[in-house]
Amino acid sequence: MDVAILLYDGLTPLDAIGPFDVLGKLPRARVRTVGIERGNVHSRGVSLTLHADNALTEVNAPDVVVVPGGAGADELAHDPMIRAWLRKVVPTSRAVLSVSTGSLILAGAGVLEGREATTHWRALDLLAGFGVRTKPERIVTDGTITTAATAAAGLDASFLIAERLCGRAVAEAIQLLIGYDPEPPLAAGDLFKAPAERITLARTGLAHP
Amino acid sequence: MDVAILLYDGLTPLDAIGPFDVLGKLPRARVRTVGIERGNVHSRGVSLTLHADNALTEVNAPDVVVVPGGAGADELAHDPMIRAWLRKVVPTSRAVLSVSTGSLILAGAGVLEGREATTHWRALDLLAGFGVRTKPERIVTDGTITTAATAAAGLDASFLIAERLCGRAVAEAIQLLIGYDPEPPLAAGDLFKAPAERITLARTGLAHP
Repeated sequence: MDVAILLYDGLTPLDAIGPFDVLGKLPRARVRTVGIERGNVHSRGVSLTLHADNALTEVNAPDVVVVPGGAGADELAHDPMIRAWLRKVVPTSRAVLSVSTGSLILAGAGVLEGREATTHWRALDLLAGFGVRTKPERIVTDGTITTAATAAAGLDASFLIAERLCGRAVAEAIQLLIGYDPEPPLAAGDLFKAPAERITLARTGLAHP
Repeated sequence: MDVAILLYDGLTPLDAIGPFDVLGKLPRARVRTVGIERGNVHSRGVSLTLHADNALTEVNAPDVVVVPGGAGADELAHDPMIRAWLRKVVPTSRAVLSVSTGSLILAGAGVLEGREATTHWRALDLLAGFGVRTKPERIVTDGTITTAATAAAGLDASFLIAERLCGRAVAEAIQLLIGYDPEPPLAAGDLFKAPAERITLARTGLAHP
């Protein structure tokens, strides 16, 4: 199973690494990180540095494509090299997963045309601006393309994809290895569960590495 | 809030990046990655490359220390530089979090002496071998040191620490940003929930990037 994970400056690391650690455990998985060029990319505020081991031109027909979100997603949605790469690899892949604002990048490439998709709650209007039929849900699957609204939803979606590609037994064994039996100590993970003042704090009051 | 995340060859990326994305969103957070030396480190099978932006000698008094697990943890538990660094920074930090086999590294440095701790279910015997009072639980907190059994438990534990250090409102706002309202599509995340054949498959039948 050949998994390609797109990396770019401004990405949210968990959006990429959640799917990495789930899908990378598939039998005979080969995970490759892909950047516009080979080299280091930095999350917002340069606080984490990841290395893209491959350039776009080196990855041509992955089975699975993962597109993380991040502060750089808006810009990348208009990058001609990214757009050309996605138009090449998305139609031939068995599964595509965008996490959070990664769906803006897919939308910018035109591969969400006529499809339903979701994105981070802060970016739903932006996604609709690309002419995509937005569904404000946690996970939306339309054909081979799965869009997950947040980093945490990206984990759930990765297990859905693992199950679809390799069966329930394999997906459950991965779940056991990762210990994905969550017990969040707080209950504000969803817009409908969070108090209004938490939403304001999340929008404006925190660091965003 | 000064957060130091230890990186090393063989680490499991999600063990480091889950806490990174939670704790990095704390107000005025500064997250630094720390390696034995500055430079690239590789997860098992070199499939993911992270960059340690600081050497151990450059990080002296972080508020929070995160020690991820991974295939390199056994070895690092005996590394004299790592041991010396942990003996210096653990007593002065406000919170220490190990994820999965990261607790072996803490144990090797002697900072779990007289404490209760947990680790990945595959490594409980190894941890006990360091003279630690192992508790086969998902998350164990003893004083300032929190040990999380798996990558996914590391996420839950990160929210516990965020709440303890910065209060419930901040922790909930981060939970909302990450959308940590998990809905695992499968129910085998815990040893007591997984069928026996899943445990065998998890032990022996999967890739481990």
